[in-house]
Amino acid sequence: MKCDKCGRKAVIFQRHANRHLCKRHFIEDFERRVRITVRKYKMIEKGDRIAIALSGGKDSVTLAFVLKKLYSKIRDLEFVAITIDEGIEGYRPPTVEIAKKITKELDIEHYIVSFKEYFGMTLDEMVKIGKRKPCTYCGVFRKYLLNKTARELEATKLATGHNLDDETQTILLNFLQADIARLARLIPQRVQEGLVMRIKPLREIYEKEVVVYGLLHDLPMTFDECPYSYFPVRAAVRDFLYEFENKYPGRKFSVLRSFESLIPCLKQMYPQIKLNKCKRCGEPTPKDICQACVLLEELKSQNSSV
Amino acid sequence: MKCDKCGRKAVIFQRHANRHLCKRHFIEDFERRVRITVRKYKMIEKGDRIAIALSGGKDSVTLAFVLKKLYSKIRDLEFVAITIDEGIEGYRPPTVEIAKKITKELDIEHYIVSFKEYFGMTLDEMVKIGKRKPCTYCGVFRKYLLNKTARELEATKLATGHNLDDETQTILLNFLQADIARLARLIPQRVQEGLVMRIKPLREIYEKEVVVYGLLHDLPMTFDECPYSYFPVRAAVRDFLYEFENKYPGRKFSVLRSFESLIPCLKQMYPQIKLNKCKRCGEPTPKDICQACVLLEELKSQNSSV
Repeated sequence: MKCDKCGRKAVIFQRHANRHLCKRHFIEDFERRVRITVRKYKMIEKGDRIAIALSGGKDSVTLAFVLKKLYSKIRDLEFVAITIDEGIEGYRPPTVEIAKKITKELDIEHYIVSFKEYFGMTLDEMVKIGKRKPCTYCGVFRKYLLNKTARELEATKLATGHNLDDETQTILLNFLQADIARLARLIPQRVQEGLVMRIKPLREIYEKEVVVYGLLHDLPMTFDECPYSYFPVRAAVRDFLYEFENKYPGRKFSVLRSFESLIPCLKQMYPQIKLNKCKRCGEPTPKDICQACVLLEELKSQNSSV
Repeated sequence: MKCDKCGRKAVIFQRHANRHLCKRHFIEDFERRVRITVRKYKMIEKGDRIAIALSGGKDSVTLAFVLKKLYSKIRDLEFVAITIDEGIEGYRPPTVEIAKKITKELDIEHYIVSFKEYFGMTLDEMVKIGKRKPCTYCGVFRKYLLNKTARELEATKLATGHNLDDETQTILLNFLQADIARLARLIPQRVQEGLVMRIKPLREIYEKEVVVYGLLHDLPMTFDECPYSYFPVRAAVRDFLYEFENKYPGRKFSVLRSFESLIPCLKQMYPQIKLNKCKRCGEPTPKDICQACVLLEELKSQNSSV
């Protein structure tokens, strides 16, 4: 197959645009779309110190690479990378190594923070002790550490590798579950005290494109899935979106557009509440005690009762 | 299987409520839910003259029956039924007969209006002459005649048989297509000059329940599909919702709740525009000439050029 722009050998077929692109034109298109997304929501500005949430998986590695490539020449702009080591035997260590390697190559300061060090337990240990689902512990503690570390590193933004597939799954899932509050949490660029603003520069890039872009740049790509990963409802939504997009290309963009056109409403429906400081740890929380402290206390008491 | 309420023989398993119900308790539940829906949106009030859009299919027949049963004792409340005969050979004549039969049994005034009489052509003829999809002609002309007839009969409301499956398919379809304007059209109870207010008393009743209720009352149920019916995108959405609901019962209600919680902001986003009177026929239209007149003109010129 040949590139629809120049006739060279194609490396990808973009279904949503119904065209084949060669390496050069695909990379150009990919980077142009990242720039547009970043500009649309003013994700990156002069003076920013961007913390990249770098798990070492394909999305975050590509994110680190493309941000550095596109924005490193901007004056007064800095990047740091944060890797959270949850302590998942067999799964996490190789990606931590990838994260080390890529930050070294890209010359980005790299901070690794582990559950074990910070909370005194690995995720594996929490799962053994506690009664909740692994993803509950992981989700709460990972976000907690990412935000706290980014803030302490004086980052102005926290960039995550969520791609178009991730975003549309979450949007549709929340819509199907009638969880409009959670839908509202996806609004880009909401500033809240104590929370470092999250940005998702890859949110308009298909997962497949992330992979192809990474491979074309010889980035280390790992496709291992977390052994604890278990989201049957999300998987059903993912499979539907996959098939639907296959039959009617571009519909993932439509889902994103639907969501975007509802943002003004969602903002009205869910005006931002002022966050409190957790009475235990001082981190931001809508309640008195933050969810991390609640879970930690629970785990400690469960541990001592074993 | 036994009724979870009284131990009698069950006639249905309601997945969304995880219970079996006998004939009596199912009918009770069905009618209670219709009443709640009607009350929630003030669909039926004293002094109303309700025109029932009666195609003769399972939904509209059940609608006519249950409305008459639940509301015929209200003072100052009248029902009329309108059947549109589009002129679809083999498909429409039997349902017109069903419509005649059921209105006679229920003692409801019945008006049959045909495309042939009103527009000079059956749908079959339009399809032969014209270049558009059958559903385009049918949708535009049917809605036109339903509204015009209802208004001329001095109806205050026009009731249609849309059930929960229909509604949620339309909601999700519009969301997936980023057609928020069309989503806004599903807002219940919007009053506009020249348009008889549409009500959908069965919108919180599963299609399966409509069928079971109809069968339990020996109503004539026809399951024939229109030979022109061709909605592949909607079919994909329908199949997904069917499987999703099967795995996670009640999710169709969630879709309806999601939509409902967005109604206040959809109203803001799409404030009602003042409709014009069509310069040809005087019927309400957002443009100068209504879509029915546009299509009719087109058909006439295509016919004369044959």
